[in-house]
Amino acid sequence: MLYSHLFGKTSRSAGNKAVVASHRLLLQAGYIRQLSTGRYTLLPLGLRVAKKVEEIIRRHVVATGAQELVVPTLHPLELWQKANRDKKFGAAMMKVTDRNGAEFTLGATAEVVMMDLVNQFNVTYKDLPINVFQFSQKFRDEARPSGGLLRVREFVMKDAYSFHQDEADLVQTYQKYWQAYQDIAQDLDLKVTVVESDNGAIGGSISHEFMVETDVGEDTIVKCDCGYCANLETAKFVRQDINLGEPQLPLQIVDQPEWVETMEDNIKHYGKPKSHYLKNVVYKDSDGQIVIAVIRGDLAVDKAKLAKVYGAKGDLEPATDDDLAKLGTRPGWVHCWGHPAVYIGDLSLKTVHNFIGGQKEKTTDSVNVNYGRDFECQFFGDIAQAQEGDICGVCQRSKLRLVKAVEFGNIFNIGYTYSQPMEGNFVDKDGSLKKLYMGSYGIGLGRAIACVVETHHDQQGIVWPKSVSPFDVHLVGLDLFHQEVADAAHRLYRQLSDSGLAVLFDDRPDATAGVKFADADLIGIPVRLLISQKSLAGGVVEYKLRSSSSIEKIKIDSVVQFLKS
Amino acid sequence: MLYSHLFGKTSRSAGNKAVVASHRLLLQAGYIRQLSTGRYTLLPLGLRVAKKVEEIIRRHVVATGAQELVVPTLHPLELWQKANRDKKFGAAMMKVTDRNGAEFTLGATAEVVMMDLVNQFNVTYKDLPINVFQFSQKFRDEARPSGGLLRVREFVMKDAYSFHQDEADLVQTYQKYWQAYQDIAQDLDLKVTVVESDNGAIGGSISHEFMVETDVGEDTIVKCDCGYCANLETAKFVRQDINLGEPQLPLQIVDQPEWVETMEDNIKHYGKPKSHYLKNVVYKDSDGQIVIAVIRGDLAVDKAKLAKVYGAKGDLEPATDDDLAKLGTRPGWVHCWGHPAVYIGDLSLKTVHNFIGGQKEKTTDSVNVNYGRDFECQFFGDIAQAQEGDICGVCQRSKLRLVKAVEFGNIFNIGYTYSQPMEGNFVDKDGSLKKLYMGSYGIGLGRAIACVVETHHDQQGIVWPKSVSPFDVHLVGLDLFHQEVADAAHRLYRQLSDSGLAVLFDDRPDATAGVKFADADLIGIPVRLLISQKSLAGGVVEYKLRSSSSIEKIKIDSVVQFLKS
Repeated sequence: MLYSHLFGKTSRSAGNKAVVASHRLLLQAGYIRQLSTGRYTLLPLGLRVAKKVEEIIRRHVVATGAQELVVPTLHPLELWQKANRDKKFGAAMMKVTDRNGAEFTLGATAEVVMMDLVNQFNVTYKDLPINVFQFSQKFRDEARPSGGLLRVREFVMKDAYSFHQDEADLVQTYQKYWQAYQDIAQDLDLKVTVVESDNGAIGGSISHEFMVETDVGEDTIVKCDCGYCANLETAKFVRQDINLGEPQLPLQIVDQPEWVETMEDNIKHYGKPKSHYLKNVVYKDSDGQIVIAVIRGDLAVDKAKLAKVYGAKGDLEPATDDDLAKLGTRPGWVHCWGHPAVYIGDLSLKTVHNFIGGQKEKTTDSVNVNYGRDFECQFFGDIAQAQEGDICGVCQRSKLRLVKAVEFGNIFNIGYTYSQPMEGNFVDKDGSLKKLYMGSYGIGLGRAIACVVETHHDQQGIVWPKSVSPFDVHLVGLDLFHQEVADAAHRLYRQLSDSGLAVLFDDRPDATAGVKFADADLIGIPVRLLISQKSLAGGVVEYKLRSSSSIEKIKIDSVVQFLKS
Repeated sequence: MLYSHLFGKTSRSAGNKAVVASHRLLLQAGYIRQLSTGRYTLLPLGLRVAKKVEEIIRRHVVATGAQELVVPTLHPLELWQKANRDKKFGAAMMKVTDRNGAEFTLGATAEVVMMDLVNQFNVTYKDLPINVFQFSQKFRDEARPSGGLLRVREFVMKDAYSFHQDEADLVQTYQKYWQAYQDIAQDLDLKVTVVESDNGAIGGSISHEFMVETDVGEDTIVKCDCGYCANLETAKFVRQDINLGEPQLPLQIVDQPEWVETMEDNIKHYGKPKSHYLKNVVYKDSDGQIVIAVIRGDLAVDKAKLAKVYGAKGDLEPATDDDLAKLGTRPGWVHCWGHPAVYIGDLSLKTVHNFIGGQKEKTTDSVNVNYGRDFECQFFGDIAQAQEGDICGVCQRSKLRLVKAVEFGNIFNIGYTYSQPMEGNFVDKDGSLKKLYMGSYGIGLGRAIACVVETHHDQQGIVWPKSVSPFDVHLVGLDLFHQEVADAAHRLYRQLSDSGLAVLFDDRPDATAGVKFADADLIGIPVRLLISQKSLAGGVVEYKLRSSSSIEKIKIDSVVQFLKS
């Protein structure tokens, strides 16, 4: 490809919205352009990278035994409703109505459609496992797209789905995908950390996320020296005993000055640390039901953990002052029991004797409150966010570290979440109908590209791994106004291309050496060749790796051989 | 691929909705499945064909100098509005609103987005021509999807766009695409007829459609022995002189029995043939403006021709009785002049002297009406539908034939349709800003597949051209319950696969020879190999082409060599 002909050149600036390195570099180097917030065009350079990434993913996914197909983008809403998944996705799901009034969702994930497809064939045990995948455009109406290709509203996803006789059979395929994802990450030169995670809107029990650690990650994972890694949403940590040695004292209602409302007010008034107080955080579920999370004062509620313990069907939103007023209370005065609400308690409630708080009124509050004796919640479990330095819930010894990361891929053990409501059955050996056991497996293509750039760049630009570089060689021609040099450069370009190498040839006659070198660094092709009047006089070209500063002189006649060996 | 593992097997029936051969065969053979009306899943077999077709299209489009990229699926509605195209597409355009209330269209074609993209680079004459293409999902809310993949609501399209200094430069690229489309058709073994056509909703002046003749086609093209071919919407034909030799008589208002309203009534009353009467057809445009088409009584109005002569911005709909009532008239009583409406006359009005009709009232009508003398229309042109046997408008001698066909691809010379309203400019040599001259070029992938099947099948099933067959060889194994036969069959399968051939191996132990042969015929792979106990005893396999009934015996040891030579 002649750079002069390339559609989508480099630009000096990426604008002030591109704060993340991959976003800025992909824009500046001419890989992507934004059409609207969270929706990007892949320019010819970007599409070349995307196709390489796609082919790497395809190769390893096919190795799991998966067969490629493609389902429509618009899914009948009624299928999602049948599977009870329409509310789960909440506001991120986009809907469209056709000329006849039929409602569709824009594919955000395809479990329901794949289950419906499998249901069109009379599946027997002989057909199982079924393992299929596709590359297709996905739509998620993210509230806050950010970081260029890191979090978008529209993207190509490799989504795979498997159907099994039972969980034992799923596990085999699940492990194949696990291996495939490790292999894909390796080919992309990405270091991934596999973490347990919550299935969220997809449904089911267990899942794993393949995380790439980077400071620009919007997710947080916990890591322990014992080897335990988890998503923040599932991180197990020990609630340490605060004062269980103290005897439980009788519950008392005590006078309290009217100004004592917040945690800070309480500390000022009682002089005890945060861990001695009861704290309430109030939510509303998608049916309008008020949910009160009760937790030790020094901990924060993790909404995903809370939703899981509660078994929430849709989004949990923070309750408003109006919601509290309807309960007959106000911020800072919420009681740990007695309101017409669903109460969900954290494990930490059992680590303290004689809690302060729980029944705040204008000039009184309760003290010496003990969980199990004085109040109990309908639901009780792990709803607290792990924090840096918490004791690992697995080894029970080492301290957890919190690390920023990006979710690169995920694998879900979703069990009967879809086959149950959608009657996804197979005929077993004995002729009986049984429910299909299901798994699903996703990798976002654009995000994978962004991960590679985040972990492979320097101040000057991108440093592509060879496996996904848009071209093999960046040939820079200087002094091309000399016909002799231009001829030699074009001849070399043809030789390299004819040998099977993909070459980007900077043939611009009017750009300076500085501009050409800067553009080559920005674009990030692993190998740079320079041909100029001077090099030609010596019968050589200058060879430089993007990842190194040293320059090697290669005889023009042996360049092809050198590069191909 | 082992047939026993293939997801998406053949089925005995395709249901009663599949009346068109390609629809029925693609369903039965396991290439596609419908998700909802006009939206199809490509099963693994179908996707294999689609990828081959895609690669053929890509190769020839790249030969025009085009660079591949991909734009988002959701287009900001404001861009379509800016280009005045939102109404042009009418009800076929699907719209979606995001969580913030921003409106988008689901990409139906991408001219506006491509123009917007090009506008993001400061294009100069040095960058021109720009020639880009993509493969992407398109959405058209067709009123009546039909014929399986022939007319759908969602499909992958190769859409290309070119930007030029002027029309002369466009013509060069236009001709390259013309050639590319011929080459693509040849590789797909499709016979195409290129016809002039109307640009319709895309806009611009000239365009050509590449039509595949088939009885199931929803389009009609006209063909003349002189070589002239055209879409019905642009077909030029001669309005023959009816009676211009007669002298023009004075206009008269004559009594007319009340029952004379329709054309048939008139013929009964006056005894003259249809061509002697004036006929009105009444429409309403998207702004509510009434449009009256005036035409010779023996001709029919072509709505697309009418819209073009009128310069309609949106759809033209038939006027209702209420619309006529507002004009102060009723069906059968519409006047050829005088109503508060836009009048558009057909060329045929000048082929008759002394028309009957034009001013019908309860018991009177006008006779001896002459166009130009007694009335004139604001617009005058070719608004009549060509009919079988009309004289060709180009050679003015031979008779036109009407042929059913499917539009396989199109190329549009769209000029300044988008660059004008969207300020799509480039900097010319002299530093001045000039408007970009644009072209666009489309091929639907699914329809291309359907065209191939329509023209390549027999009673038993599909007969794929080698170029797009999902596999190179269909290996049928019989008597596989004999271990010896099974071993030999699997060995042959591996040998063939290792040699680089794509093989579908029917390894089912429990299917009869009849079922396997029928499935092979249905699926339509060009080469069938049969290995059985009997053939093995003779040291041979049976070789049969799908397109022939003769069987050849090939030594097992030399099968690979035979097939590869």
